Amino acid sequence: MDKLNISKHISGQFNAELDHVRNQIMAMGGLVEEQLKDAIHLLSKADHDLIEKVIETDGKVNGFEVQIDEECTRIIAKRQPAASDLRVVMAIIKTIADLERIGDAAEKIARMVQRQNDKHNSSLASLEHLGLRATAMLREVLDAFARMDVDLAFKVHRADKKVDKEYERFIREQMTYMMEDPRSIPQILDAISVARDLERVGDRCQNIAEYVIYFVRGKDVRHLGRDEIKELL
Amino acid sequence: MDKLNISKHISGQFNAELDHVRNQIMAMGGLVEEQLKDAIHLLSKADHDLIEKVIETDGKVNGFEVQIDEECTRIIAKRQPAASDLRVVMAIIKTIADLERIGDAAEKIARMVQRQNDKHNSSLASLEHLGLRATAMLREVLDAFARMDVDLAFKVHRADKKVDKEYERFIREQMTYMMEDPRSIPQILDAISVARDLERVGDRCQNIAEYVIYFVRGKDVRHLGRDEIKELL
Repeated sequence: MDKLNISKHISGQFNAELDHVRNQIMAMGGLVEEQLKDAIHLLSKADHDLIEKVIETDGKVNGFEVQIDEECTRIIAKRQPAASDLRVVMAIIKTIADLERIGDAAEKIARMVQRQNDKHNSSLASLEHLGLRATAMLREVLDAFARMDVDLAFKVHRADKKVDKEYERFIREQMTYMMEDPRSIPQILDAISVARDLERVGDRCQNIAEYVIYFVRGKDVRHLGRDEIKELL
Repeated sequence: MDKLNISKHISGQFNAELDHVRNQIMAMGGLVEEQLKDAIHLLSKADHDLIEKVIETDGKVNGFEVQIDEECTRIIAKRQPAASDLRVVMAIIKTIADLERIGDAAEKIARMVQRQNDKHNSSLASLEHLGLRATAMLREVLDAFARMDVDLAFKVHRADKKVDKEYERFIREQMTYMMEDPRSIPQILDAISVARDLERVGDRCQNIAEYVIYFVRGKDVRHLGRDEIKELL
């Protein structure tokens, strides 16, 4: 099995500081996961307290990003880690950027629901399944990151294809609705915008999966095909 | 004036290696700029050779990203730069990620034009102005990066607002067209998708502008308001 422990890769004083950063990134990930889950919940039911909560969380997520980023830079400057240790810090720096943008997507959904002003949008509500799929991907990739589990990272990498397919089906379906009832166009365009954000959440989870593979395997797989990645397993 | 020279910030052997990376990032930036310009050109006129060129460029851009990323990691591990030198390497690593995604947007436009199969799409053609605006932002932010020019970086940062406004106007306008003529919906949805990609190109240029400010000022401005950023100037 390919479950490596990060601590095998690291040494000395570097260890404690890195552990701290790892805890912080898991806290940030947990926060973004909750924020996304809440935002998905809002798709079918506008809850004003929950809208506020999702929007407010964005500030905390941004704060985590800046703080972890600074801490990583400080660790590199102070500890001068070797190439292999450096890989994990690089993976962290890239991961927080993707997490922050997933948080942005959740905030955007909350603001859109807020603008809809309690008017039910059935197209938006029908996105719940896609949203849950994206949330599941996020949970799994955070898990893969925490355990540096390459098998799980590869599973998440594959799961993105399902999100893409569901997104494309949604667009085709909504296109038909718009043509049948042009009055629905503004609402459906809002839902399409959310669908696209959710599809991109899947892409970002795929990015994080690639950083995990990069860290464990030492190979940059960002622009390889699925079969080439599979050969690394 | 706030034109700093990177070389003032760096020292010794680090210098030559960093210069090489800087040349590479400018080459990558130039390639992406040309790719985006070509893609914008395709919006009003499908040219099969140009479509191929834009799509093929994506592989080269990805290659640059992986190569520069590896070189940066190697430089950090080998040269163990101090905090201030490290900042420029960090700015480079983040910049190439944004450049790579601007390249992806250009490729996506080329593939969309290819799918349209020589059928004229007037909504797509009307995006040329927005596209030129985004291309201008890219050119300017690359210039700001090359010269580490904080004033220019701030100018680019402000320009994104114009891109956002133009994007919103486009969406409203196209919504009216769709309602007037539902048969136009599939074509307009394609154009809206491109518009959104162009709007995000503006966001990515804004990101790069923030990295320049971060490098020169040593302050992370990613989540500050425009007025707070202005105070740093």
